[in-house]
Amino acid sequence: MIISPKKITLTKPFVTQSGEVIESPEVCYEEYGNQEGPVIYIAHGGLSNAHAAGKYSQCDLESGWWDPIIGSGKVIDTDKFRVICANSLGSMFGTTGPISINPETGKKYGPQFPEISLIDMVCFIKLFLEQLGVEKLHLMAGPSMGSLQSLQMAALFPDFVENVVAVATAGRMPPSGLTMHHFMMNAVRMDPEYKGGWYEEGEARHSLRIIHQVAKLYYTHEKCIKTLCWDSVEDGEESQQKRNKNISNYLLSTLDDDIAGRDPNSYITLTTAVNGFDLGIGTASYEEGARRIKCPVMLINIDTDCEFAPQWAHELGDVINQANPGQCRVEIIKSEWGHLGCLREADTIADLMQDFLG
Amino acid sequence: MIISPKKITLTKPFVTQSGEVIESPEVCYEEYGNQEGPVIYIAHGGLSNAHAAGKYSQCDLESGWWDPIIGSGKVIDTDKFRVICANSLGSMFGTTGPISINPETGKKYGPQFPEISLIDMVCFIKLFLEQLGVEKLHLMAGPSMGSLQSLQMAALFPDFVENVVAVATAGRMPPSGLTMHHFMMNAVRMDPEYKGGWYEEGEARHSLRIIHQVAKLYYTHEKCIKTLCWDSVEDGEESQQKRNKNISNYLLSTLDDDIAGRDPNSYITLTTAVNGFDLGIGTASYEEGARRIKCPVMLINIDTDCEFAPQWAHELGDVINQANPGQCRVEIIKSEWGHLGCLREADTIADLMQDFLG
Repeated sequence: MIISPKKITLTKPFVTQSGEVIESPEVCYEEYGNQEGPVIYIAHGGLSNAHAAGKYSQCDLESGWWDPIIGSGKVIDTDKFRVICANSLGSMFGTTGPISINPETGKKYGPQFPEISLIDMVCFIKLFLEQLGVEKLHLMAGPSMGSLQSLQMAALFPDFVENVVAVATAGRMPPSGLTMHHFMMNAVRMDPEYKGGWYEEGEARHSLRIIHQVAKLYYTHEKCIKTLCWDSVEDGEESQQKRNKNISNYLLSTLDDDIAGRDPNSYITLTTAVNGFDLGIGTASYEEGARRIKCPVMLINIDTDCEFAPQWAHELGDVINQANPGQCRVEIIKSEWGHLGCLREADTIADLMQDFLG
Repeated sequence: MIISPKKITLTKPFVTQSGEVIESPEVCYEEYGNQEGPVIYIAHGGLSNAHAAGKYSQCDLESGWWDPIIGSGKVIDTDKFRVICANSLGSMFGTTGPISINPETGKKYGPQFPEISLIDMVCFIKLFLEQLGVEKLHLMAGPSMGSLQSLQMAALFPDFVENVVAVATAGRMPPSGLTMHHFMMNAVRMDPEYKGGWYEEGEARHSLRIIHQVAKLYYTHEKCIKTLCWDSVEDGEESQQKRNKNISNYLLSTLDDDIAGRDPNSYITLTTAVNGFDLGIGTASYEEGARRIKCPVMLINIDTDCEFAPQWAHELGDVINQANPGQCRVEIIKSEWGHLGCLREADTIADLMQDFLG
């Protein structure tokens, strides 16, 4: 599937929960499949982007991050469905965020980009979909931050979403992920080149180099590092030296590519939004907030994920099912990939989705 | 128990495995208990120090890091035993390391401190103990890096050690810890103030602030962060905000104290040594290297430790027991403390040691 990213400017300004106005917001998105079919919205992970499936050209080495799930004849079948995936508000890959030009000042928002919540992100997706003429989603699904947005959408607009599949997920941001995100924010702010967020383009890369190394330890699992860097070395006199070299390469060899085009201010915007996520916000309790969701839900967590451990899917599943038995299905995938399993286990996720969506 | 740290200069120079000579090395250590009793050597964790037990004065708020294990009437009974714990070669708390003055140049070693191995560290302990007149250890024990040193000592000098208790351990440095240590080294070297290791005292603190935040995520477990920062907040409208604040405090509130007196060059020296650890070095295989240990061994790992997962204790235990059934006992402690359980679960460790030592 060869696809092209699209960009539109929203005709309405976007007003955040705290009352800040973003004029002429832009949305960079991808769209696949049958334009006449029911609509499926795919939401991406926090540090990821809208390139969920297909390739931009035949020469691309890799397809989008959920390619085994989305395409002709796949579980999210582009022959049947109209599939949309947009970059999130506040992210750094085309949709309005800290790296964008503020049309009111003609300068980059930088650190003056409004503080947004996960609810803002979801309302922004809704505004965007309204402009595209979408009145209902057959499914909203996504990994990690995208899973939280899917649940939040179904809780805020229960009549708008017919099914949710949330992968690497929780009903509120769990402690370990909160801690990792605070570390990221601190690393950005402590970067000597950060300058309160007024760095020049291409500066303040130090914090990104730090964060993306830690990510390679935190978002995966030892089993995976062992498979990649350890098992490939035969035991012998110099095996520990060779394993050290492999691990050093694992951290550093793709680091410059990993951080290319990334914007430190955006890390603060995104992690702040995700850290505030709690389905209870705006209602009397977490339980009440979660039970606004009326559609069938499938929660899929990875057994080795330290950001969204299995217990957090069970916590939310129990809350929903206590009120309405059988509404929420919880699946735990065994995987050596840790949090990254939400992408790397796409084949298994596809099978579970097939069974869930029927 | 009120104790005072001691310092001696070794009368012999120390020669590393790679042939580098450290003249007039100093050892900062602590000594407790019955001077006439059998000797027990306690080895400390990589980023820790020789203050294993007791207090320096009645005013100290905290005792040494294994105080529940070492003292009058405790499992390592200072009424019966002479207990010694020294700062490791290459560390930053008094024993010769990168922060020390090189007597040959009159200047700090800095980045020119010789690259040392874990075997060097152990041979240095042996040299130090010989100077104290110690001919045999009734027990060598320690957490984390100290556990590796204990095993390495028993493998190199099987007649010198009568018992080993290794807590948070493995027979070779496992993949996850290798990765964390490479991250630490990279963070130090990437610090804009590092200057190839020739920073002034009090400079290059940025990398330490980064490392010690990551340590608070990596060396513990989500359950512990949940207990500290999450469960104390009642569910309600602003609970997520309060939990965020607690977690931000968890990372930052003690950070300046955490890094006080610490030396970035020493992190490179220590993690390089630990990362090279493999009981097979100098022998035909890992198995042969491990089986040089002739004394009873107890390996204790923590179920939630991501640096030394339970499997790594079992790996070594199996190798030893396949050659000599029953020589090695493996215990896994259930704990919410992750790697830090090697200190925080001292009461449980003490019970297991009591049972092991009889």
